[in-house]
Amino acid sequence: MQYHKITAGDVKELIALIGNANVMIDEEKIDMYSRDEVSDKLWEKMPEVVVTPENTEQVAAVVKWANAKVVPIIARGGGTGLAAGAVPLNGGVVLSLEKMNKILEVDTANLFMVLEPGISTGEVQRTAKEHGLFYAGDPCSAESSFIGGNVATNAGGNRAVKYGTTSRHVYGLEMVMPNGEIVTFGGKNVKDVSGYDVIHLFVGSEGTLGVITKIWLKLMPLPKFVATLLVPFAEMQQAINVVPKIMTAGIVPACLEFMDSESIKASEIYLNKKLPYSDAGAYIICQVDGTTEQQVESEYEIIGKICEANQALEVFVSDNMASEERIWKARKAYAEALRMISPVYCMEDIVVPVSNIPAALEAIDKIAKKYRCRIPSAGHAGDGNIHCTVLREDRDEHAWHDLKDSVLAEIYAVVYELGGSLTGEHGVGAKRVAAMATHMSDAQMAVLRSIKTTLDPNNIMNPGKVLPLI
Amino acid sequence: MQYHKITAGDVKELIALIGNANVMIDEEKIDMYSRDEVSDKLWEKMPEVVVTPENTEQVAAVVKWANAKVVPIIARGGGTGLAAGAVPLNGGVVLSLEKMNKILEVDTANLFMVLEPGISTGEVQRTAKEHGLFYAGDPCSAESSFIGGNVATNAGGNRAVKYGTTSRHVYGLEMVMPNGEIVTFGGKNVKDVSGYDVIHLFVGSEGTLGVITKIWLKLMPLPKFVATLLVPFAEMQQAINVVPKIMTAGIVPACLEFMDSESIKASEIYLNKKLPYSDAGAYIICQVDGTTEQQVESEYEIIGKICEANQALEVFVSDNMASEERIWKARKAYAEALRMISPVYCMEDIVVPVSNIPAALEAIDKIAKKYRCRIPSAGHAGDGNIHCTVLREDRDEHAWHDLKDSVLAEIYAVVYELGGSLTGEHGVGAKRVAAMATHMSDAQMAVLRSIKTTLDPNNIMNPGKVLPLI
Repeated sequence: MQYHKITAGDVKELIALIGNANVMIDEEKIDMYSRDEVSDKLWEKMPEVVVTPENTEQVAAVVKWANAKVVPIIARGGGTGLAAGAVPLNGGVVLSLEKMNKILEVDTANLFMVLEPGISTGEVQRTAKEHGLFYAGDPCSAESSFIGGNVATNAGGNRAVKYGTTSRHVYGLEMVMPNGEIVTFGGKNVKDVSGYDVIHLFVGSEGTLGVITKIWLKLMPLPKFVATLLVPFAEMQQAINVVPKIMTAGIVPACLEFMDSESIKASEIYLNKKLPYSDAGAYIICQVDGTTEQQVESEYEIIGKICEANQALEVFVSDNMASEERIWKARKAYAEALRMISPVYCMEDIVVPVSNIPAALEAIDKIAKKYRCRIPSAGHAGDGNIHCTVLREDRDEHAWHDLKDSVLAEIYAVVYELGGSLTGEHGVGAKRVAAMATHMSDAQMAVLRSIKTTLDPNNIMNPGKVLPLI
Repeated sequence: MQYHKITAGDVKELIALIGNANVMIDEEKIDMYSRDEVSDKLWEKMPEVVVTPENTEQVAAVVKWANAKVVPIIARGGGTGLAAGAVPLNGGVVLSLEKMNKILEVDTANLFMVLEPGISTGEVQRTAKEHGLFYAGDPCSAESSFIGGNVATNAGGNRAVKYGTTSRHVYGLEMVMPNGEIVTFGGKNVKDVSGYDVIHLFVGSEGTLGVITKIWLKLMPLPKFVATLLVPFAEMQQAINVVPKIMTAGIVPACLEFMDSESIKASEIYLNKKLPYSDAGAYIICQVDGTTEQQVESEYEIIGKICEANQALEVFVSDNMASEERIWKARKAYAEALRMISPVYCMEDIVVPVSNIPAALEAIDKIAKKYRCRIPSAGHAGDGNIHCTVLREDRDEHAWHDLKDSVLAEIYAVVYELGGSLTGEHGVGAKRVAAMATHMSDAQMAVLRSIKTTLDPNNIMNPGKVLPLI
């Protein structure tokens, strides 16, 4: 695919369309749009131009212009992606949604929030709470990621075990399609089978099928009681063996996380706060919530007993906000904490059926030993979603790329053998395009490709992401 | 679109492909495949041939054959549809999944059931229960509808308020695509963003994008405690006004149903069992479930108090299986019971935001008065999903079609004014194709059409359903 290169004349046309204040070419200003949180130069590229439209009509004007010229459009949220999904690797216009940051409505009668994409997920959570309601999505990056990015990647996060991923909360989308048309699907109806479910096709499509400009999010009643358990184990395998036992005990925890010993220690140093049993081999972190205190107690007692019967060193139940927050800060600091050990790393996001987590972690451990590298792990154990991170440490560029390629090939092979998949929540982006194409069948790829091509015939929407560039 | 008409030679070819026992042309045998549960001759048509493949390979062989010849394929489940979705109105092969009726696996470690499409939903529920697990889908037709049909129409049912529609439980699908290729998407991973979410595009696509041949259903822990409340009110509007109050009370009931006075009386006569307060203006039926008895009690007390404070005549709490079953039998008998009053009727399936249910029912009442017809209503109040049924009674054919067309046009206009939509769970089928095309924008229709055309370029998959025939 040959794309038109942006000229000085093009920049003038963009300024004419959406105003001088919304078009940037100054290298100093646009540098931050050249990367996401993948810590590797390989996945960085300077945009030709960055636009910051203020409303849907401006987004539509830019997309229509780009489609006519055959210029790539790379929609961008908070820039916290972990798959180089919002990096303009094939050139073009980075379209940042940062100025479309209004909550349009909190509908307490129907339990909906209607909002623009450029709002942090943390703000969505807090706004819901101020109205006595609950937005269940909770990626670890909630304070910096945008809700639009969460929707575009179908972000998972900590409460997906009980409440599902972002997809489950999205009941309507306004989209600017690749031809520049503005289309709305869904809204405040909690059931609707009038036509195909394209809403959930757009959710998780990583900006390759259009630009999300408005979102209808379903809210829920705020759980009245919440408790978090922190359970240290001497050995990683002991901790992880307990996960399928909890998941088949007849209750559904809101969160069921794990951290291995390297992750715990890194978080402790990063947060500069002593964590309980921080020399443990692993943590299980489990949250339960509900409408009565007695129900929450009964659920955490069931979980506590399972842990105690399965070699837990201790079962801490957080009994106040401070201890609750300390536990979650440790878990959420995982990515940043590892960066202290190794500024460059490769964070994977594999997912396997829950019963296969022990086998997956055992295999990863063997791979680390074989290649003499460190691969700390943490993640959403209750979902079978493991973030295992290959650390570069002091390897030179060449050795690092060799190591990474070999290790990833072996990890992915194990994952697919175990009935798993490449990415549970971080997305395909650019980083996993080749691996996905390897592991999917031709027939699967043909279905995805045909949907992409029919909706975006000029392939201007985030080209080279999810599907290989052709 | 010109379709090839089936010849005697074609029937021989089909027999050669899948065997004599799986191909039917005898009019007496295939008559039952000429209709679903829409009680109107307008929506009936005799199939040219009916095939009953025994496995995925046979389905693929038939579809590949049909695609080469350009013959319509109409996939059919239990035949309980309410939108003429499985009726061969444009000719072709009815492909019944009745012989693909095996439960392939109940995976109690990962809480999944893997199964073929031709099993009744009731059997799925019971099989899950035998393993101490819960399949949350519960259409009123559970005993006769097939799980494949539930998936193909994204069936809703009684527990969608808390547990979502069928879509939420589907994590993997094996599909025979319109070109005859067999493709599997998803499986036992509870999170997976490797590629577009086409699973939920296929769910609810009513056989127009391919044939579902295998399903991965997520199960849940069986709720340990369940209670059902039956709450009679003197007036319909009193009952329905209470619905938004319950839905914003900080709890999520599993079910929240309503029945109007005509529906109650019809059910009572149909079941030949006295119902409590059967001369009431309306019932609210509400179910709560959970992991502790105290939680369930606390939730139904909250609901009971809201009802008592809002003119309920009484609040019955079912305290045993017998009374529980009697309540649900009354609700589930709605469709059959109305048939006693009027063998021909037009059951609608409108959906509005929950806060607009009172306005929608008031408008329907006015329309009934204006046209001097009876339109009893019942349905899933907690979802905003109302089944209002226009009765033909003793009108002649001409008067009936005039009445129905005028009444539906007015009902749909009101629904869209209230932010609602055409169908919450019964589907578009053939019955609502024209109405959907009227109420959707050209841009919306273009997105749906482009997906259909790219996946099924010969338009052999259930043509004329969901989208108009072109």
